[in-house]
Amino acid sequence: MEKQIYQTSSFQSSWNEECAVVGTYNVDHAALKNYYALFSMQHRGQEASGISSSDGKQIYTHKNKGLVTEVFNQQCLQNLIGRASIGHNRYSTAGSASLSDSQPLFAKYNLGEIAIAHNGNLTNAKDIREHLIHNGAIFQSHIDTENLIHLIAQDKAPNLKDRIISALKIIDGAYGLLFLSRTKLIAVRDRYGLRPLSLGKIINADGSIGYIVASESCAFDLIGAEYMREIQPGEMLIFEGLATSDKQSSIPRITSLQIFKPNPHPCIFEYVYFARPDSSVFSQNVYSVRKNLGRELAREHKIKADMVIPVPDSGVAAALGYAKESGIDFELGIIRNHYVGRTFIEPTQKARELKVRLKLNPISNIIANKDIIVIDDSIVRGTTSRQIIKILRQAGAKKIHLLISAPPTIAPCFYGVDTPDSKDLICANHSLESVREFIGADSLGFLSLKALNTACGGKIFCQACFDGNYIDDYTKSKYR
Amino acid sequence: MEKQIYQTSSFQSSWNEECAVVGTYNVDHAALKNYYALFSMQHRGQEASGISSSDGKQIYTHKNKGLVTEVFNQQCLQNLIGRASIGHNRYSTAGSASLSDSQPLFAKYNLGEIAIAHNGNLTNAKDIREHLIHNGAIFQSHIDTENLIHLIAQDKAPNLKDRIISALKIIDGAYGLLFLSRTKLIAVRDRYGLRPLSLGKIINADGSIGYIVASESCAFDLIGAEYMREIQPGEMLIFEGLATSDKQSSIPRITSLQIFKPNPHPCIFEYVYFARPDSSVFSQNVYSVRKNLGRELAREHKIKADMVIPVPDSGVAAALGYAKESGIDFELGIIRNHYVGRTFIEPTQKARELKVRLKLNPISNIIANKDIIVIDDSIVRGTTSRQIIKILRQAGAKKIHLLISAPPTIAPCFYGVDTPDSKDLICANHSLESVREFIGADSLGFLSLKALNTACGGKIFCQACFDGNYIDDYTKSKYR
Amino acid sequence: MEKQIYQTSSFQSSWNEECAVVGTYNVDHAALKNYYALFSMQHRGQEASGISSSDGKQIYTHKNKGLVTEVFNQQCLQNLIGRASIGHNRYSTAGSASLSDSQPLFAKYNLGEIAIAHNGNLTNAKDIREHLIHNGAIFQSHIDTENLIHLIAQDKAPNLKDRIISALKIIDGAYGLLFLSRTKLIAVRDRYGLRPLSLGKIINADGSIGYIVASESCAFDLIGAEYMREIQPGEMLIFEGLATSDKQSSIPRITSLQIFKPNPHPCIFEYVYFARPDSSVFSQNVYSVRKNLGRELAREHKIKADMVIPVPDSGVAAALGYAKESGIDFELGIIRNHYVGRTFIEPTQKARELKVRLKLNPISNIIANKDIIVIDDSIVRGTTSRQIIKILRQAGAKKIHLLISAPPTIAPCFYGVDTPDSKDLICANHSLESVREFIGADSLGFLSLKALNTACGGKIFCQACFDGNYIDDYTKSKYR
Amino acid sequence: MEKQIYQTSSFQSSWNEECAVVGTYNVDHAALKNYYALFSMQHRGQEASGISSSDGKQIYTHKNKGLVTEVFNQQCLQNLIGRASIGHNRYSTAGSASLSDSQPLFAKYNLGEIAIAHNGNLTNAKDIREHLIHNGAIFQSHIDTENLIHLIAQDKAPNLKDRIISALKIIDGAYGLLFLSRTKLIAVRDRYGLRPLSLGKIINADGSIGYIVASESCAFDLIGAEYMREIQPGEMLIFEGLATSDKQSSIPRITSLQIFKPNPHPCIFEYVYFARPDSSVFSQNVYSVRKNLGRELAREHKIKADMVIPVPDSGVAAALGYAKESGIDFELGIIRNHYVGRTFIEPTQKARELKVRLKLNPISNIIANKDIIVIDDSIVRGTTSRQIIKILRQAGAKKIHLLISAPPTIAPCFYGVDTPDSKDLICANHSLESVREFIGADSLGFLSLKALNTACGGKIFCQACFDGNYIDDYTKSKYR
Repeated sequence: MEKQIYQTSSFQSSWNEECAVVGTYNVDHAALKNYYALFSMQHRGQEASGISSSDGKQIYTHKNKGLVTEVFNQQCLQNLIGRASIGHNRYSTAGSASLSDSQPLFAKYNLGEIAIAHNGNLTNAKDIREHLIHNGAIFQSHIDTENLIHLIAQDKAPNLKDRIISALKIIDGAYGLLFLSRTKLIAVRDRYGLRPLSLGKIINADGSIGYIVASESCAFDLIGAEYMREIQPGEMLIFEGLATSDKQSSIPRITSLQIFKPNPHPCIFEYVYFARPDSSVFSQNVYSVRKNLGRELAREHKIKADMVIPVPDSGVAAALGYAKESGIDFELGIIRNHYVGRTFIEPTQKARELKVRLKLNPISNIIANKDIIVIDDSIVRGTTSRQIIKILRQAGAKKIHLLISAPPTIAPCFYGVDTPDSKDLICANHSLESVREFIGADSLGFLSLKALNTACGGKIFCQACFDGNYIDDYTKSKYR
Repeated sequence: MEKQIYQTSSFQSSWNEECAVVGTYNVDHAALKNYYALFSMQHRGQEASGISSSDGKQIYTHKNKGLVTEVFNQQCLQNLIGRASIGHNRYSTAGSASLSDSQPLFAKYNLGEIAIAHNGNLTNAKDIREHLIHNGAIFQSHIDTENLIHLIAQDKAPNLKDRIISALKIIDGAYGLLFLSRTKLIAVRDRYGLRPLSLGKIINADGSIGYIVASESCAFDLIGAEYMREIQPGEMLIFEGLATSDKQSSIPRITSLQIFKPNPHPCIFEYVYFARPDSSVFSQNVYSVRKNLGRELAREHKIKADMVIPVPDSGVAAALGYAKESGIDFELGIIRNHYVGRTFIEPTQKARELKVRLKLNPISNIIANKDIIVIDDSIVRGTTSRQIIKILRQAGAKKIHLLISAPPTIAPCFYGVDTPDSKDLICANHSLESVREFIGADSLGFLSLKALNTACGGKIFCQACFDGNYIDDYTKSKYR
Repeated sequence: MEKQIYQTSSFQSSWNEECAVVGTYNVDHAALKNYYALFSMQHRGQEASGISSSDGKQIYTHKNKGLVTEVFNQQCLQNLIGRASIGHNRYSTAGSASLSDSQPLFAKYNLGEIAIAHNGNLTNAKDIREHLIHNGAIFQSHIDTENLIHLIAQDKAPNLKDRIISALKIIDGAYGLLFLSRTKLIAVRDRYGLRPLSLGKIINADGSIGYIVASESCAFDLIGAEYMREIQPGEMLIFEGLATSDKQSSIPRITSLQIFKPNPHPCIFEYVYFARPDSSVFSQNVYSVRKNLGRELAREHKIKADMVIPVPDSGVAAALGYAKESGIDFELGIIRNHYVGRTFIEPTQKARELKVRLKLNPISNIIANKDIIVIDDSIVRGTTSRQIIKILRQAGAKKIHLLISAPPTIAPCFYGVDTPDSKDLICANHSLESVREFIGADSLGFLSLKALNTACGGKIFCQACFDGNYIDDYTKSKYR
Repeated sequence: MEKQIYQTSSFQSSWNEECAVVGTYNVDHAALKNYYALFSMQHRGQEASGISSSDGKQIYTHKNKGLVTEVFNQQCLQNLIGRASIGHNRYSTAGSASLSDSQPLFAKYNLGEIAIAHNGNLTNAKDIREHLIHNGAIFQSHIDTENLIHLIAQDKAPNLKDRIISALKIIDGAYGLLFLSRTKLIAVRDRYGLRPLSLGKIINADGSIGYIVASESCAFDLIGAEYMREIQPGEMLIFEGLATSDKQSSIPRITSLQIFKPNPHPCIFEYVYFARPDSSVFSQNVYSVRKNLGRELAREHKIKADMVIPVPDSGVAAALGYAKESGIDFELGIIRNHYVGRTFIEPTQKARELKVRLKLNPISNIIANKDIIVIDDSIVRGTTSRQIIKILRQAGAKKIHLLISAPPTIAPCFYGVDTPDSKDLICANHSLESVREFIGADSLGFLSLKALNTACGGKIFCQACFDGNYIDDYTKSKYR
C-alpha cells in the first residue's frame, strides 16, 4: 500500500466534520427539546450550535459559536416558535471556521424557505462546488451543505422531496441530513449508513405523538423520548401535517422512502471513540462494544502487569473489558479534570506537559513502582500519548504497556471524522517500534482489524481509517 | 396627488437602509484605519458593523451586531490582515434584522472571492430577487446586496469590472458600493448620486500614498486623510496594484470609468438630517447648509418670540441660522443626555414621556413664561414632537412655535432613508392645522421646497420624501 | 503665595471625589427611581455605581464598576426591594480604584445595619483613619466614608442620629451624605455647603407623598419629582415612618436639624464645569450662570474676531454669553462625537492628536482663514487645550484666541473635585505668556476672580482652586 | 441520642464553608501558579475565586464571583505582581452570598496591610462577632474571617505573628488559614487538624526554592511542585525573606511554631466525598482510601447481584473496591455529562427527573433486567438518591441495592462542610426502612462507623456528621 495516497489536501475542500443533528416534529416546546437533545450530544461538537424552528408559516433561526449553553438563552428559545425544529452542533476544528459556517443553513429559494442541518462529509463536494460555482452559484460558507441548497434550488421538480432526491443522486459521501421547510421535516441517511441517525417518539402533554430524529440515542433519554429504530442506509423519512398553531398538536404522517439501494458500511470509529457510551448507535450499545474491544485486546495482548489503567474518559470501557478478560485489576489511575474551558489562560512555560496535566493527573500512590497496562482508544499524531507516558513515568510507574483498543490509524477519514492528513498520522509513516520509541512506552500494542470487527458485531463496517479501503464510489475512483 | 400610492409594503422586499461604507487601499493598518473611519460614522448605522480585509491572497471578514466599539476588539482587528479593506455600519431598523444581514457580504464565486459593502437601497431588488430565485438562486440574507453577488457570479464576462458593470445595468436605485476582491478595490456610485461617496488620500509611514473611500468626509479627518473629491454619479473607481505583503506598500493605480451617464439627484435629506455637521457631502459642508436652512426658515416664518431653541443635536445649526437671520436670541434650552444605550431598563409607567426625557431635558429657568421658537429638522410620525412640546409646556413655556427646517415629509424614501410607509407619515395624511393640533404647538411652520432648494445650493436634488417625485426609472414606472 | 504648598500627596490619603448621590424615601419602585436619577447624573461619576435599598427589615445592596446602565439590569433592581433607597455614582479616577471602593458602603454594627453614600471629600480623613487604625479599626476600602462607619459604630449614643452628629463633629471637609438604616433615611450637608444637595417630592400611585434627595435637580426632572429646596449647609434631614410593605405607602415624617452653624461656601466650580446645565444647584440654574460667565468674559476681553466657538459641551453656554455680549457670531465650529466608550481600541500612532479628535472634530469650512475666539471652561494641565489648538490650526484657523470662562486653576481641590497636584497645574507654575506659548494660541485670556463672582451671583463661594483660600479649619490649619 | 440538638440555625451565623486555599512564596509568577493551583481545586468551591499578591511593598487583590477561569484573565494576573500570593475558592452555597463575601479578605490596619484566606468554619464566630460589634467594630461581609482581622487589628502585640496567635486563642473551630502581609506568608492549621493543609516546594527558573501551601496535593502536581508534608494540627508556618523585586528570587526562611497542643481529629468526610481522588490528604491517597471503603462495604454487605455500579464520579473508587472484594463485576452503568454549567436553561416540566438526567444517564442495555448494586458516597436529603433509583428503574433494572460507602449522615457539620440542618437530614429523622422506602431501592445499606474508621487508616477522626460527637470545646459546651 502506498501511504502517500491518503492526503486530504489533494482533493478535499470541505470542512464538514462529525457533528450532531436533532430534529423534532409535532413536539411541545420543539426548540427547547431540541436544545436539551443538542446539549446531550455536546461531545459531538463544541464549536458552534444552532436551531431552526418552524410554526408552519415561517422558519426562525438562531445560531452562534460556542457551547449549547452559551449560544442559547431563554429569550432565544422563546423566539424559536413552532412545533418543528432542526438543530446542529458543530465539531471544533482548529480556528479556521467562521460564524457563517455554523448550521442550520437557511435560505429562501423558489419553493419557499428551507433550513438544513448536516452531520457527515460529502466526498465529491469540491467537484460539485466547482461545477456550481462555474455555472454562476455563489458560496457564502465553507461547508458542504451549501452545495445541497444550490442543487435543490436549481432542480426543476415541483416539490421538495423530489428535489432532495435529485440532489442526493449527485452527491456522494456520508450524511445524516435534516431538512426543515415551513411545514415538513425530512430526514435522510446516506446509502452506506456511515453516520448514525435514529428515530424516536415522544408523548406530548395532550397525548399526541411527536417525533425526534437524532444522531445518538442519548438525546432521547434526556427528553423522555422512546427509541424506535435506526433510520436505514439510503432511507428518507418525511414528516408532514404540522399544526400551524404553537399550542395545538396535530397527527403527523411519516412516509418512509428507500431512495437508495443500501450498501451498509457504518463507521466503526463511532464505536471506538466518538459516540457516548450510553448511546445506542447502529443498533448496539456503545459501552458494551467498547468492553468487547477490551476483551479482544486482552486475548491478543497477554501481558503480565500489576494493573490496567484507562486514559479517561474514552478508554474506560475497554480497560474494564481488558481487566475482566485478563483478570488483572482495573484501577482508575488517572483522574480527569472536567473544568477545562476555552477561556483558560495558557501556561507560559513547560506548556506541553502542563496542557495534558490540566486534564489528566495520575495517582502516584497507585502506580508508583508498578507495572501498568494503559488503555487508550487510538493514536493519531502520537504527541498526546507521549505526554501521558511522560507524566506516568514522573508519577513513578515502573513498566508502562500502552494498548490501543483499535488498529493503527493509517488513513484520513473522508466521511466526517476529523483525522489529519496521512503525513501527520504517526502510524501511517512509522514502524510499530519507532512509534513505541517516540511515545516512550515499554511496549505498545494495537487491536487487530479482525478482532476489532469481531468485537463490533461482525457486520461490515467502514474502517477506512484503519485499512485504507474507502467505500464510496467517488473516493474509490480517485485512488484506482 | 394621490397619497396612497407611496406605500413601501406593496413592492419593496428589502431592508437595506442608510448606512456607512469605508474602503481603504494600500494603507498601513488598513483594517484599523477602517475601524476608526466607521467609528466616526457611527451615527449612520448603529445596528451592526463589519470589516473585510485582503492581503492580496485571501479575504478575511469580521462582523457582528452592535456598535463599532462593541463589534471589534484588538484581536479581531489583528486578524484582519492586509493593506486593503472595506467596512460597513448598518442602520438600526426595528428588531427585524438578523446576523446574516450584516455586511460586508462575502462569497466565493467563479472568479475567486469577493466582499461587498453597500450604502443605499436598490429599488428593483425584489423583482430581481424573484427572477434569480425563480432561476434557482438561493438567498441567505434579507439584504439587496445579495442580488449583486448573484448577478456578478452568473455573468459571463472574464473579469470582475465588466461583471459589476453588467450587474449594475440590471439594478436601479441608490448605492455607494464597495467591492473587495483579493487584489482590487472597486467603488461605484449610482448614476443619480443619491448617496454620498468621497475619495481621500493618506500618506503611509514610508511615504507611499494610500486611498480611502467613505460616505462622509468626517471619516477622513479622524484618520488624518485628505479629502480629494466626490466620486461622481455613475463613476466607477478601480484601485489596483496591492502589495501582497502586510508590511510593504505598493504604488497603486486608480482607474476612473464613467460607467453610467450621470443624472445627478443627490439626496437632500443628507443635508436636512442624516450627515454629520462637520462632514462635507455633495461638495458642501453640512453645518453651513443647515445654517442656511435656518436662515431661510427665518425669512419665511417671521415670528415674535423671546428665544430660538433647537431640538438637540439635529436642530442646532438651523436654529443658529434662524437666530442670526431673525435677531432673536439663541438658547440651548433643551439639554441632551448622551449616555442612553441599548441596555437601558425600560420604564414601567408614564413610559412615553420618560422615554423622551431620558434623552432631552428642558431648562425650566430659561423657558418658563417665555414665548419660544423651537427648531427641529423634520416631523415623521409626530409622536416625538408631541412629547417634546409636552415637556416644554411642563417646563413652563408660554407660547411654543415649532418650526421645521424642511418641508413636510409626505412620501417614503426608496433610496435608503428609513422613513415609514405613507400611512404613518402624519403630514402625508393630515392638514397642517390638524398636525399642529396633534403636536400641541401654538404654531407650526415648515420650510418651503423652494427655500430648501435655495439653502442647499440651488442644485437639482432628490427630494422625493418632500414632493413625491421619485427619480429612478423603476420607481417612476411603478407610479405612472 | 507659595505655590508648592498645595500638594495633595503630602497629607491626603483618600480617593473620594466629586460624585452623585440620590436618596428616595416612601417611593413606589424606590430602587428603579434611584436608578433613573443616577442615570441622569451619570456625568458626575462614570467609574462605578451602586444602590442600597431597605424594606424596613433588611438592607439590600448591588454595586459594581461601570456605567449605571451596565451595573444594573432588571433582575438586580427587582432584588433591591423596599420603598427606601440610597444610590451613588463614582467619578472616574485613573485606574487605581478597586471594586471595594464603590458605594454605598454597607456594614453591620451594634445598632443594626447601615448603608452610606457620600459625595465630597473629608479633609481630615487621613488623620482620623490613622487614629482609628491605631486603635484597632480595620479598613477594607480606600474611601473616606469608611471612617464614618467606624466613628458611628464606636460612638456610645443610643441612636443613629446622635451618633452621626458625634461622628460629623470629628470630621471636616465637604460632604453630601446619605445614611440608610433599615427604617430611616438621613441626609446631611456639610456646614460650608460645598457640595450641592437638594430635596424634592414625588407623588406615588396611591397619592401618598415620597421624597427624593439628589445632588442635582436634573434627577428630579427625569422621574417627575418636584424640586422643593436646597438642603442647607449644616442641616440634617431625618426621614422616618417607612412602611414595611413593598406595596403599601406610609406617611413619612421629615425632621430638620441644623446640626452645625452654617458657614456657606458653595463650590464655584460646580457652576464653571461640573453640574449639568439644566440643573439647579445652589438655587441657581447652571446654564444661566454659565451664560453670565461668558458675558463677563466678553466685558473683560474685548477681541476682534470673526466668530466665537465653544469647546463642546462644557463651553457652549459661556460661548453663547460671550457672543451675545460681544455681538460676534456664535458658531458650533467643533463637533463632538458622543459614541466614545471605554472599550475603544487605542490608536497605535499619532496617539495624542487622534485621542482628542475621536471626541472633537473642527469644521474646517467654517473656521478656515478665520480669526476665532475659542471658549473653554478651564485649563488644568494644558495638554488637551494644546491639542485642540493644534487641530484648529490644521483646520485652517488664522488667529486663535483662547478664552477661559474662569480664572487660572492654581491650587488643588480638597473638597471633592478631581484636580491634580499643584505641580501638574500648568497655571500654578507658569506665567500667562508661557502657558499661551505652550498651548499655541495667538492670545489667551482668563476671567477675573471678581467677574467670576459677579457672574455666579455675588455670594460667598469656595473658590480655592482659583485663589488658594481653603475654607475648612483642617486644611487652613495645615497651611498657616 | 436526641436528634433535635444538632440544629445549625440556633447558634450559627456564619457562611464559611469547605473551600480551597493556596499560598505561594518566593515563586516565579506567584499569582499565575496560584491560579493553576486554584483551578486544580475547583471542585472545592465554584462560587467565587480570588487571589492577593505582594511584591514586598504592597498587596494587590482580584476576586469575583464565578469559576477560576471566569474570574481571572491574563490582564488580572499580570496586575497581581510579586512573588508571594494567597488564593481562595469559595464553595457554592445557595444564592445567599454576595461579592463582599468572596476572599481573600483585605484590610489596612495598624501594622500595615493584610490579606486572609480561610478554609473551614469558626464555631464560636457568632459570639465573637457579637462581642466585637458590641464594642464598636463594623462588619462588611458575612464571613467568619472578618472576625480574625478585627481581633488582629485590636491586639496590642507589636508583630503580626503574636497577634495571630492571640486571635486564634480566642476562636475555635476548623481552619486552614493563610495570612499575607507585605513581606510574609503565614499558614496555620487548627489544633484538630480538621481541614487539610499541606506544604510543597517548587524550583524556580534560577534554581532557588519556592514554597506552596495548599488544601490538596493535586495542586502541587499541576504546577510541578513536590509534596513535602502535612502542616501539623496546631502548627504555624512563617515564611519570610521575600525579595522585593518581581524578577529576583530570595532565600526564604521558614519558621515552624507549634502554637497549639495538637488534638488531631481530621475530617473523615474529606475521604468519603470531598477531596479529589488523586490528592493526598492527611498523608493518605484519597482514591486508595475510597477503594478501602468499598472493600469494607463488601465485607459488611454481602449481596448477590449481577453487577456493581457507581454513581459517578464520587462513587467510582468505592465501587471498584466493592467489586474487587466481592468478585462481582464492576460496570460503569451510569454516564455523567460534564458540560452542565450555570447558564443552563431550567426545564419547565418534569423538572426533577430532567435535572438529575442532565448529569447522569443510565446505560439501559447494561442494566436492563439485572440485579444491580449501586454505590454512592452519602445520603443527605435523599431526594437525589430517589431520582437516581427512579431513572435506573426506568432503564429496566430488576433489583436495585443501594449501598452507601459511609454511615448515615445524622448531624450537621460545624467545621466547614455544607450539610443542612438536622431536620433536613433524612437519616437523622427516619428509620433505615423508611429511608429505603422513600428512596425506592430494593435494599439499602450503609457502612458501619467501625468499618469506616478501619478503611480510613484507624486514626482518630472527626466524624461528627456520622456520630454527633463534635470535637471542639465551643460546640461541645453548647450541647452538654
